[in-house]
Parts: sequence; structure tokens; C-alpha cells
Amino acid sequence: MTRQQLVQLIRERQSYLCVGLDTDIEKIPQHLLQEEDPVFAFNKAIIDATRDVCVAYKINTAFYEALGVKGWIALDKTVRYIGNSHFTIADAKRGDIGNTSDQYAKAFFEAMPFDSVTVAPYMGEDSVKPFLQHAGKWAIVLGLTSNKGASDFELQPLQSDEHLYEKVLTSVSNWGSPDNLMFVIGATQAEQFVQIRKLTPHHFYLVPGVGAQGGSLKEISEKAMNEDIGLLVNASRAIIYAGKGEDFAEQAYKVAKEYQVEMAGYLVKN
Amino acid sequence: MTRQQLVQLIRERQSYLCVGLDTDIEKIPQHLLQEEDPVFAFNKAIIDATRDVCVAYKINTAFYEALGVKGWIALDKTVRYIGNSHFTIADAKRGDIGNTSDQYAKAFFEAMPFDSVTVAPYMGEDSVKPFLQHAGKWAIVLGLTSNKGASDFELQPLQSDEHLYEKVLTSVSNWGSPDNLMFVIGATQAEQFVQIRKLTPHHFYLVPGVGAQGGSLKEISEKAMNEDIGLLVNASRAIIYAGKGEDFAEQAYKVAKEYQVEMAGYLVKN
Repeated sequence: MTRQQLVQLIRERQSYLCVGLDTDIEKIPQHLLQEEDPVFAFNKAIIDATRDVCVAYKINTAFYEALGVKGWIALDKTVRYIGNSHFTIADAKRGDIGNTSDQYAKAFFEAMPFDSVTVAPYMGEDSVKPFLQHAGKWAIVLGLTSNKGASDFELQPLQSDEHLYEKVLTSVSNWGSPDNLMFVIGATQAEQFVQIRKLTPHHFYLVPGVGAQGGSLKEISEKAMNEDIGLLVNASRAIIYAGKGEDFAEQAYKVAKEYQVEMAGYLVKN
Repeated sequence: MTRQQLVQLIRERQSYLCVGLDTDIEKIPQHLLQEEDPVFAFNKAIIDATRDVCVAYKINTAFYEALGVKGWIALDKTVRYIGNSHFTIADAKRGDIGNTSDQYAKAFFEAMPFDSVTVAPYMGEDSVKPFLQHAGKWAIVLGLTSNKGASDFELQPLQSDEHLYEKVLTSVSNWGSPDNLMFVIGATQAEQFVQIRKLTPHHFYLVPGVGAQGGSLKEISEKAMNEDIGLLVNASRAIIYAGKGEDFAEQAYKVAKEYQVEMAGYLVKN
């Protein structure tokens, strides 16, 4: 999916919501466990219910890998089921030396039809670049994350007088363009958003941490929206586990719809 | 596998060689392509040939993920085929917020029987700790890697007057112990090995970059061996692609045996 297509999708649906499919077999409603593929059955119901109010789905690969081969099958079925109507994100935090990153890009962009994959920057340029060489595909590189551990390394000050995550943003943005590169910026880091937007004015951010992790949608939207919106705000647990009974998909829709309505309000001002 | 068991294995086999199964379906001998699972057939032959001269196998997950579900099946079969006679490494460079890293640990330590997984440190403590909470299992955290991109971030000087990778080594070593935590240190970074050993005197290092990437086994062994050896030196392409014909496993054995003989020489002095 191109940047232009993504922006158009956001304007049409009046939403920059990304639904995170962190599907944990231990947390899905009991009645689904009799299905042949409970994880896929859960995802299918969530996708059917939320399609019209979101523009992206983020599949957290860890939850699928934890189930072994069966999980990898559910992952593959899920991304194919979503199809081309949404921007798809393999939230996989990959990254390795060049010839290995090439293989990861192949895994998510060729063996499976993902639009994008999240990438860890620690190993530098040759670990990121292979994800930027597929037309219409995106690398979403970790900038400043939403977790407590962000302070351990990401927020360390460098001798060049910037924090590590700022160095990552400025270096990595030279390796790609706003057409094939986004950054992960945690919603819990709202006080940094103005500075981050200064460093990378035109890039999209994938923003996790709203909902279960406590970030504010209002604050993020006010501080970080740009001329092309530039935001995909993700909620996972707050949406997909909104209900625990047979009406779980309906409950998920209600929460997703609330986010969409709130987002429509911020889009009016854009 | 415990540290004690690993050290004993090294002393018995007179080898600290790790064979890297970066098995690329486009590089394996043609005649294997008629097998039902060519990747597993290749791995099985390499494992049978090299078992006696190495103590570890490192499976680079990217090459398996690139094949989709079939690849994940080959990965699973390979680690089970190796069994308990060797230390097994899922070279997967994982790492995410706590609840997600938990799932990755489950994937490699429960759904599959790996002894260890390589972990990217960028996201800090809560992204690493879940890999340290499984008895007899190990996290192998990226310290200083062998690729060109290591200079982009890992070698950046911090205001605390250490390089980022040094901060990673000292911080991460407080989150675990030499009994459940190793570091990845690239063989091409030999000039840093003395300083790295000072910072982490008792930890094992997984050292890739010998062979195809040009690192020197002699230099690493002289600079970084400790009282418990403390080294697993990996070679992938140099061993597994030593031959291209029907005798590929025999050729792989010959190269692996050369490494083992050289290693035995360095072990005498230990």
C-alpha cells in the first residue's frame, strides 16, 4: 500500500485506528476453543466487526509463534483474510545483518502479503535497508517505545547531545523516505512528541500504548498529527478483549467505534 | 542446558564450535530439491556429519520464516533432530515489551525445545527479562555485532563516557547471571575484545563473523577465553556451503573439523 492510498483510506474512514491482533489463546472466549483454528476464528470475528472503523491491523507475531507451527498457520490465514482493504503490519521487531534481514523481508513481504514489518534498529543501516527495497512495502522502525525499559537505552544521552532515540530517528530517516519508512513512537511518551515531530516532520508514526498501557489519544493527536495525518494509533487488548462472552466481537466493535468517533473529531481540525 | 553441562561438553569434544544452520533453499545442492523437505534433509546431513566436532547449532530463523509455514515446520524438525547432545540457539533477534517477550520465550523454550534465543536489547529491561525466567534456558543478548552497521548506534559514545554497547553489556549483565545470559560479540570486532572481557569477565560470548565475514579465530580465542572457556564461535556459510555437490556434508565436516582442531590447540593453553 502506498502512502497516498493510506492517507486516502484514513480520510474516507475518518479513522487512523490500528487494531492490534495480539491474540492469546488463553484469553479468547471459551466457546471458540472447539473451533478447528480458535485463533483464526477469533481474528476473523474481530476483523469482520471492526473493518469499517479502522484502517490497519497489526499482528503481533509473538503470540502466533508461541503456538508453534499451528500459530504460524493462523498468522498466515489472518493476514490473507484481511486482504487489501487495510494496511497490514507484522509486528515482529525483526533486524539482523544484511543477508539475514533480506530473508525476514522475504518472509513478510513475499511468503506473506504484509504491507509492513516493525524493525529493531540496534544493528544499524544494513539491518534496516533490506526492508526498504520492496515497492509498496514499509519498514516501521522502533524509535521511542511505550515500555518502562525505554529509559534503559533509548533515552540515554549521547555525547552528540541528543538521546539515542533521536539519533535513531535522524539516522534512519536518511535511509528511507516518508514513503517507505515509519517509526514506532509509544503513546506513553507524549511529552516527547513535539520534539519527535520536529525531527521527522513528514513520517507516519505507529503509536502503540493507548488503552491498556495508558497513553492519551487526545494528546498524541494534538501534538503529532501532520499535514497527511501521519499517525496510526494502535489499540490491542482494549479492543480485542473488551468482551469475554459470545458477543466479544460486538464489544470489540463498540470500543473501536468510540476510538474512531474521537479520531473523526481530531481529523476535522486537520 | 546448564553452564556446567556446556563447559563439560566443550572440554570433552575439545571444541567450542557452533555450526550455523543459515539454510537457504537457493544455495543447497540441487539433488536435495527432490526431497519432501529439502531444508530439513540438508540440515540432517550437516548435523550427522558435524555432530562430533561441534558443541552447538545456531538456527537462523529468518531463513526458515522466508519459506512460510513449510519453513517453520523445517525449523521445528531441525531443533528436535539435534536433541540434547548440543546447545541449541534460535538466532531470532527477538525483543518486545514484557508481555510480548513472554510469548517469544514460550515460542522458543516451550513450543520448541531450544536452549537459547538471541535477543535485541533496544527496548530495555522488560524486553529481555522474560527470556531469563526459564530454568536451563538462556538469553543471548546483542552486545557488539559483526556488521558494518554496528557503527551507527552500538559504537556511539554516550555522555557517561562509554559506548552504547558497553552500557548494554553492563546493564544487561545485571539483569541475569553468567548462568542464563550470554552476549553476541562479533568476531570482526577483535580490537574491542579485551575491554569487553573486562566488563563481563564470566559470561559466555556467542561469536559470529568467523569465516565468510572475516574474523580471526586465533585472535578471539587469545583475547576472550576465560576460566570456563566462555566462547561459542559460530561459522555458518563457511561450513554448510563448503561443498556444492553430493558430498556437501563431507566437505562441511572437513571445514568443521579444521576449526575443531584449531580450537583444541587453544584449549590446551586454558
